[in-house]
Amino acid sequence: MTMAGLLSALPDMEPRRYLYDLVPVYPRRGGKGLRCGLTIATCGAFGGTPRLALNSAIAIELFHNAFLVHDDVEDGSLTRRGLPTLAAEHGLAVAVNVGDAMNVLSIEPLMRNLELLGPEVTWDVMAEIQHMVRQSTEGQATELGWVRDNVLDLEDADYLRMTLKKTCWYTCIHPCRIGAVIASRGAIDPDRFNRFGYFMGAAFQIQDDVLNLVADERRYGKEIGGDIQEGKRTMMLIHLYRHASPRERDRLRRFLATARERRTDRDVRWVRALMDRYGSLDHARQSARSLAAAALDEFHAAYADAPPSRDRRFIEQIVHYMIERDL
Amino acid sequence: MTMAGLLSALPDMEPRRYLYDLVPVYPRRGGKGLRCGLTIATCGAFGGTPRLALNSAIAIELFHNAFLVHDDVEDGSLTRRGLPTLAAEHGLAVAVNVGDAMNVLSIEPLMRNLELLGPEVTWDVMAEIQHMVRQSTEGQATELGWVRDNVLDLEDADYLRMTLKKTCWYTCIHPCRIGAVIASRGAIDPDRFNRFGYFMGAAFQIQDDVLNLVADERRYGKEIGGDIQEGKRTMMLIHLYRHASPRERDRLRRFLATARERRTDRDVRWVRALMDRYGSLDHARQSARSLAAAALDEFHAAYADAPPSRDRRFIEQIVHYMIERDL
Repeated sequence: MTMAGLLSALPDMEPRRYLYDLVPVYPRRGGKGLRCGLTIATCGAFGGTPRLALNSAIAIELFHNAFLVHDDVEDGSLTRRGLPTLAAEHGLAVAVNVGDAMNVLSIEPLMRNLELLGPEVTWDVMAEIQHMVRQSTEGQATELGWVRDNVLDLEDADYLRMTLKKTCWYTCIHPCRIGAVIASRGAIDPDRFNRFGYFMGAAFQIQDDVLNLVADERRYGKEIGGDIQEGKRTMMLIHLYRHASPRERDRLRRFLATARERRTDRDVRWVRALMDRYGSLDHARQSARSLAAAALDEFHAAYADAPPSRDRRFIEQIVHYMIERDL
Repeated sequence: MTMAGLLSALPDMEPRRYLYDLVPVYPRRGGKGLRCGLTIATCGAFGGTPRLALNSAIAIELFHNAFLVHDDVEDGSLTRRGLPTLAAEHGLAVAVNVGDAMNVLSIEPLMRNLELLGPEVTWDVMAEIQHMVRQSTEGQATELGWVRDNVLDLEDADYLRMTLKKTCWYTCIHPCRIGAVIASRGAIDPDRFNRFGYFMGAAFQIQDDVLNLVADERRYGKEIGGDIQEGKRTMMLIHLYRHASPRERDRLRRFLATARERRTDRDVRWVRALMDRYGSLDHARQSARSLAAAALDEFHAAYADAPPSRDRRFIEQIVHYMIERDL
């Protein structure tokens, strides 16, 4: 429903070839719909109708897709959801600008909230989105900086702080907050969702990174091992660097200091094998499971006063799915 | 005043090294302050105080700087305001993300309008900004597409339509509209500034493109002739292609089809000399002068009911400056 709403909300006008034909490219490729699902279901769990949350869910989903467009430019990624990235297909310049357009277009549904939700709730949602986007750019800045400067002396706590900013706010925390703010017309303090969304988002991100290393490429839609090739600071890479021998550390550091296009498949396979040897994937999987279990506890706290409903069960199932998906 | 306000409104917090240290880099390099000047002066000309327009002027100026950061990435430019571009100094990935952060930060001053201007005017200004940013991405898409696909069969009308979108809305039209909306609390129909801002903005852009070819590099702050190197579809390039001989057209088309880093200085000088031979710069200068003269007429219409004031004179002087600057 949200995806149809999203696509129908997009402009069908000139300039098509270099802009509005490209804006729906990533949304049309599908995706899990996790963010819009959480927004609408949380609204429902607290007594709101889906229609009340639809504009906001569309905005979050469109922002997410804009973020992916720029993320693919920044990471130099070649595929997304099983097809070439916008940058790979249409060039870096056009892709950066399409991402900018998607960001500004994501504000339009929020402006349509005015009639539906009245000025106060509309404004509250706008402030939520503002915070959400800022947190994402802050997390992204940290991750990109680590790669650029080959920062390797990192702890799980650094990783989790970065992930809170880059992923958790926009993937979990704000969708829940916004759904509840809309349903309760501002009566529910949205801070109650922060811990739940943090644990859930971190579990989600770690699993996503694990899947990048182990999943079937056609199902996953990105290059398998692409994260190693990119030098992405995953929990696995951080674990590996912490546990590797001095010689291995040296080689790892040199591999990551090499210009990306000159990193060989052989080296990528070496890093991947080393992760197995030191149990880096098991460490990450175990962390994801613990976080998902903590998310389940927090779910019961945050949704304690939401009566049993399909929406409430849906959210609980998402947490279970987090623990189980493909691990 | 706006620049100090802008800089003091920026976050001073972590992550510094990869984000908040970089956000003020372009604003600190100065700039003409044309957009914030027009906003505040138009507000003043219609009876508002500078303080009422300050948040909006800061937002427009910050958006402008965000636009420059991404524009430099998209064009592969090396210098901006006499120093290395953010992308040249900090890498493409960090620069794209810094631009994203600047875009979202530019919304914050607009949210602070709520207390100052009340919900209705705040909302009107937000809608103006939304339109402004969309128009800019549409114009940018067209320009980038022309370069990417080596489109050369263009008329002045195509150039002016693209420039309306890429430059005029955010540089002139919306600053005037927003200043008047704030001063009159929504009583002035902002459409009255559209023709004025269009003529003024187009004159400004053409002159800016002419300066890229003739100005002193240290004063201009960008690589002289950089636009030819980039293949930018300026009024001069479009004029040249229209008037060149078939053989010259062929060579021009081949030059522009060459990967940018392989375009030689010799070829750039050849294009530049050909522009002189065919009077392409004179044609552009003459167009800019006609547009600036039309802007002056429209100024008198749009500001007819604004009583004499320093602000009104300031805006009129900007139009005169448009006609005269360095041509």
